[in-house]
Amino acid sequence: MLAAWVDGVAGSDLPISDRALHYGDAIFTTLRVHAAQACWLQAHLQRLQQAADALRMPMFDWSAVHADIERAAAHPQAGVVKVILSRGDGARGYAIDGSIGRRLVVVYGRPATDPAIHARGVALRIADLVLSDQPALAGLKHGNRLEQILARSECVDPGIYDVLLADARGHVISATSANLFARFGDEVRTPLLSRAGVAGVARSRILQQLAGTAVVTEIALDSLYLADELFLSNCVRGIVPVRSLGDHRYTGMATAQALMRSLHTSLGLPIP
Amino acid sequence: MLAAWVDGVAGSDLPISDRALHYGDAIFTTLRVHAAQACWLQAHLQRLQQAADALRMPMFDWSAVHADIERAAAHPQAGVVKVILSRGDGARGYAIDGSIGRRLVVVYGRPATDPAIHARGVALRIADLVLSDQPALAGLKHGNRLEQILARSECVDPGIYDVLLADARGHVISATSANLFARFGDEVRTPLLSRAGVAGVARSRILQQLAGTAVVTEIALDSLYLADELFLSNCVRGIVPVRSLGDHRYTGMATAQALMRSLHTSLGLPIP
Repeated sequence: MLAAWVDGVAGSDLPISDRALHYGDAIFTTLRVHAAQACWLQAHLQRLQQAADALRMPMFDWSAVHADIERAAAHPQAGVVKVILSRGDGARGYAIDGSIGRRLVVVYGRPATDPAIHARGVALRIADLVLSDQPALAGLKHGNRLEQILARSECVDPGIYDVLLADARGHVISATSANLFARFGDEVRTPLLSRAGVAGVARSRILQQLAGTAVVTEIALDSLYLADELFLSNCVRGIVPVRSLGDHRYTGMATAQALMRSLHTSLGLPIP
Repeated sequence: MLAAWVDGVAGSDLPISDRALHYGDAIFTTLRVHAAQACWLQAHLQRLQQAADALRMPMFDWSAVHADIERAAAHPQAGVVKVILSRGDGARGYAIDGSIGRRLVVVYGRPATDPAIHARGVALRIADLVLSDQPALAGLKHGNRLEQILARSECVDPGIYDVLLADARGHVISATSANLFARFGDEVRTPLLSRAGVAGVARSRILQQLAGTAVVTEIALDSLYLADELFLSNCVRGIVPVRSLGDHRYTGMATAQALMRSLHTSLGLPIP
């Protein structure tokens, strides 16, 4: 962590009464910084607004959130900016009456990710943890992340980049911190996120890019072994091809490579 | 909030890098204070330890947690002590390597609950929100509470004390911040919490008290209308009889009254 701001004021402390701390009562987003600019800033702001509405959060000053992010991105070592919008201070208990919200912005250095992941692809495995269904929270990047933490802690083998999570019906949802795409012939599919998962900003960008050939649909976990190509998307690490899922290997990378060519330059990421 | 301690040191601020804030990566418990003592302290400590193990939290100094609670309970206006055990500071991301944990203890005044709820009973209704199934988190009092916040926000009518939550199978789980008991003739039932819900300390105490006549089982929401008596349990508000569920009224209160006689004195709560 390089620096932080709370409601626009430089500082790295937060009152103990904040509801993000008590209940995970917050939403967040994470932006990549390239050439002192926060990448895809408007899309991140729009997603924060949608999540704030869905969770009936207090009204945030969106121009102040915008200014917070730009200031953080201007930090000379900035690599990643994280924005957390909390419901703010609360009395004891779950009731949300009268909360006024709090903006937290943190700037981190460049992520330590190995750039070779884009050329070689990564190894995944299937998580043991099964994601719960909660339509009221599905799609939102909210502050209740214990499922992702438990799933991530299954990655004890350093050769495994991440795990894929499925729901109780056996439909794949995502990795712990990336969305998933699977190509079957000419058709690219990404999981429907109406019951679980986070609708990532990079995922939306890819869906725009692939308009006409990409579909959002339920994807049976088992069907992934029939795919010609898998890749992950994330706003910080960009497009990451998948080399293997458990013992199954993938050799196709055509769509991931095309997307890296069209999207990675603006993110300051390599094009292999 | 009257006072707070972070890792045993008086203070009401927390570093912005704490994982409770980013992910709800924490467990908690809330104790009633009576005569400067934290009620049912050993049971609360035991439950914290079980939750810490289940979530692979760092090793906490349990004698320090104990001392923190006793010091908080000794505050002259103490009514409630809340303990939050966070996984502590983390780098960006879900991985939990190297976290060392942080103890947060907050003391609040006497709750503003109307003491007449114990004599008259309270009105409940069924929540629209359906609780998700997550066996890996079920039973634990963890820091991911957005479902309870959304459900609680359904209580816009001030005459409604709380809502009852069910899972997708139509089995009742609990209220937003209390466990539920239902008496059918001589048998008292409380929901099985293997897929959702929080196994409360007051619930455990009641199950001990009613050993032989109480069963933990799946309870269909619809069957609650056939019960002779419903009541709620919570460590701060004690035993709370239910007067009505939606339009259905309950007249039985015998088990709730017997439990209030045996448990309320030690909590400093009225026996109607």
